[in-house]
Amino acid sequence: MTESLDRTRLAAWRAYIEASQRLFTQLEDDLRADSELSFADYHVLVLLSEAPGQRLRMGDLASRLVFSPSRLTYQISSMQKRGLVARQPCPDDRRGSEAVLTAAGLLTLREAAPHHLKSVRTHLMDDLDDAEVACLTRVFERLGRRLRAGRDASTAPGDSDS
Amino acid sequence: MTESLDRTRLAAWRAYIEASQRLFTQLEDDLRADSELSFADYHVLVLLSEAPGQRLRMGDLASRLVFSPSRLTYQISSMQKRGLVARQPCPDDRRGSEAVLTAAGLLTLREAAPHHLKSVRTHLMDDLDDAEVACLTRVFERLGRRLRAGRDASTAPGDSDS
Repeated sequence: MTESLDRTRLAAWRAYIEASQRLFTQLEDDLRADSELSFADYHVLVLLSEAPGQRLRMGDLASRLVFSPSRLTYQISSMQKRGLVARQPCPDDRRGSEAVLTAAGLLTLREAAPHHLKSVRTHLMDDLDDAEVACLTRVFERLGRRLRAGRDASTAPGDSDS
Repeated sequence: MTESLDRTRLAAWRAYIEASQRLFTQLEDDLRADSELSFADYHVLVLLSEAPGQRLRMGDLASRLVFSPSRLTYQISSMQKRGLVARQPCPDDRRGSEAVLTAAGLLTLREAAPHHLKSVRTHLMDDLDDAEVACLTRVFERLGRRLRAGRDASTAPGDSDS
């Protein structure tokens, strides 16, 4: 069952997928314990906090998170109920809508971030030397660019903006 | 909000988490399109196919997948309905149970694996040089070992075997 990946690359793939899934589970456990946020909640808060006016169109947010429209709707509704975000019609497009960070959402993020980053440091970053950090940055920036380009090419303009 | 992670390491962390989530979504989309399997289905099939007698205790499987007991029960029930696995009492422990790979499960895995590994190669591995492959293997094998040791230390013996 390994005919299409040589032994060295198969070992790399397995180490990466297994450790990453374990790491993401650990970081999410820490995040829930410290801040009652899921990984997805946290990621939405970060993206909105960095967007101009602390707001993003639902389609842009879905594409940044790699979420389907229905998964994003569910995610944002859940965060709305907790007061972390609001949802508003787009000023320049009556059919579209935007997710907007609330003050409570911003304060929750500011409270959660130091704990979360400490957890990233403890579980991953403190163990890496500078060459390893540079290698991860290079490999994953390139991968992210390639995957974004592939997805953009397969999505018709406007498709992602529901 | 970056006080606990320097700029270089924060950039590495972000590149890694964003590209990885995008990659896992892409690989799961491919897997569903080619083989009607989720990532978790595929991973269960691989673990069972490599276990002695093609069977694993539910607790061991949960710990390998980093799933909670309830999530694993749900996962295995869904695979049972599709005929991919069976569930049986442990021969040496009346309270425990095992997941067992069926012939249909093995054939499904054999059919799915070349497509899935091709997709891993196309989206990730073909783009890496040998030094990058070695770096990923080293970083993620070390991380996996460390996270497994941490989790084992926080789980009382027998706890994970429901």
